[in-house]
Amino acid sequence: MYQNQFYTPEVQGPYELISIGELRLENGGVIPDCRLAVATRGTLNDARDNAILITTWFSGTHQTWLDSYVGPEHALDPAKYFIVVVNQIGNGLSTSPHNTTDTAIAMSKFPELSIGDDVVAQERLLREHFGIENLHAVVGASMGAEQTYEWIVRFPEKVGRAAPIAGTARTTPHDQMFTEALTEAITSDPGYRDGEYAENTEVADGLRRHARLWMLLGLSTEFWKREAWRLLGFDSREAVVSGFFEPLFAGMDPNALRVMARKWRNGDVSRHTGGDLAAALGRITARTFVMPIDEDMFFPVRDVREEQEMIPGSELRVIEDVAGHFALFNFHETYLPQIDRHLRELLDS
Amino acid sequence: MYQNQFYTPEVQGPYELISIGELRLENGGVIPDCRLAVATRGTLNDARDNAILITTWFSGTHQTWLDSYVGPEHALDPAKYFIVVVNQIGNGLSTSPHNTTDTAIAMSKFPELSIGDDVVAQERLLREHFGIENLHAVVGASMGAEQTYEWIVRFPEKVGRAAPIAGTARTTPHDQMFTEALTEAITSDPGYRDGEYAENTEVADGLRRHARLWMLLGLSTEFWKREAWRLLGFDSREAVVSGFFEPLFAGMDPNALRVMARKWRNGDVSRHTGGDLAAALGRITARTFVMPIDEDMFFPVRDVREEQEMIPGSELRVIEDVAGHFALFNFHETYLPQIDRHLRELLDS
Repeated sequence: MYQNQFYTPEVQGPYELISIGELRLENGGVIPDCRLAVATRGTLNDARDNAILITTWFSGTHQTWLDSYVGPEHALDPAKYFIVVVNQIGNGLSTSPHNTTDTAIAMSKFPELSIGDDVVAQERLLREHFGIENLHAVVGASMGAEQTYEWIVRFPEKVGRAAPIAGTARTTPHDQMFTEALTEAITSDPGYRDGEYAENTEVADGLRRHARLWMLLGLSTEFWKREAWRLLGFDSREAVVSGFFEPLFAGMDPNALRVMARKWRNGDVSRHTGGDLAAALGRITARTFVMPIDEDMFFPVRDVREEQEMIPGSELRVIEDVAGHFALFNFHETYLPQIDRHLRELLDS
Repeated sequence: MYQNQFYTPEVQGPYELISIGELRLENGGVIPDCRLAVATRGTLNDARDNAILITTWFSGTHQTWLDSYVGPEHALDPAKYFIVVVNQIGNGLSTSPHNTTDTAIAMSKFPELSIGDDVVAQERLLREHFGIENLHAVVGASMGAEQTYEWIVRFPEKVGRAAPIAGTARTTPHDQMFTEALTEAITSDPGYRDGEYAENTEVADGLRRHARLWMLLGLSTEFWKREAWRLLGFDSREAVVSGFFEPLFAGMDPNALRVMARKWRNGDVSRHTGGDLAAALGRITARTFVMPIDEDMFFPVRDVREEQEMIPGSELRVIEDVAGHFALFNFHETYLPQIDRHLRELLDS
């Protein structure tokens, strides 16, 4: 355990740590006292049927969602919905390698997680803590889309609507290789010391390599060619990398990134159906809008569409944004209006 | 200087080392005795007008071209043409950091190269050594395409036909970032010792990371998803990486890779025209067939087409191959027939 400033309410905005007790993990192992970092907006109505769960992406927290996606001007409107954003396990805010006081699972000893663990934990949190049995909707992007798919395959009767954005139900081989490269970038740093560094600054080189890997696939070839970063206020390509993404990841916890990369790597709803993806996605009863981003290099539209076509009654809603996957950060003013338009239609249906 | 088994005729097949004397470099610096590794097929006719120059790609040598692309059954037919394959400077066969006896430019002291240096050296070689003033054609892929573009912009009157395959005339920002990542993967290995390692095996970790970067973009997302590697005789994705690409790059010289990556990064024919790419490509008089590969993640068709449209009278001939950029290795039996068909039409015209 060590203090990491990045994972504090001062940086991330307020959140509540809620214990759901012991969580037995899908891959074996156990988190004896699993705490979820949760932020909510709006009010649960008397019928308890206006709750929307938002899940988080790799290295992301509740903050981006609350800052960019949630508000009276957006589809995710707290005046209408009770919005619950749950940080994924291992993300540095919920129970994670660096913040647990339980030495049996701290740092390098943190158990391997599955997307299923998050969804089981979230379902328990909603039911036991908030008294929510059914969700108006689940919304998530990237690894949050993985959790969204897991929800609607695992608990089909509990979810009315779902919006998996820029993600897949089963991680593709190419994305698996990317997660392995992310892990390798970090763990190959001698300062990583097999996960037993004293603090994240000792893994600075690895975190820097990790940041630069994101640059190769996180945006799009077209983003770089058009110098679309100028619109974001940067004056050079290098400034985007060294001035924004390197510092961003430099503050994060290396073990948290490793644990999340592994979880991402093994995301696959078809483990519920013996590897039969069509059977797993065929279980879905939620009204589902599948939203890939046209320039996404991790989740190309053709990969996403292949899955979407297996989901009964689902619709493909392609988001256009030259920023590719990182469009999720709301770089361009044309991005959120597209998300809002599709989400409004979905949530109102 | 050290002995590296990979760069020997035993591994690469026979070649001739031909000195072109002193080569003053575009970026400053000089190679006092520049030797080009050259392999030829066929016979120069009396008119000296049947010569085809083939240039080499990053980490490639003459061998792949002779093994896969040249022969009586191919467009590049030695019965009709005098085919000259010239290994690029710094590739480990031509004068390179690890093989020069000149201590002033050995290892870390090797000067920075430009694509223009290769083309100037090749032109001198052809003229002074072979007595060739004009080329029937220049053919090259990837960094070889860069050299091809440089030829037809720099010496438009000397080239009748050109086939730049899977490459660009000006390196895109995304590809620049990739070359930087390649370099970083190698130079961040403590064994690299700022380029003064005793032999390549000391940089094994860096070379392995370098190989894995190629896996992220060298093929295509679709190649991995379809498990197209099964057609190549591998039984797992990991076997492709650890059984083929890691050992391949493990044998190479780290400084050679660094020097080539830098050369690739800065490839840009528009430096002849003050940054005006249309003006540079507008100089071209060679009949030019531009051949991107549809699934190429380094040189997407849209990037290649944008340049092709600036070349007077040129044609875009898209090659279809799920292997993406590495289709160049002739993985699929459907690949070379496409190349041959377009090249035959070009060379016969």
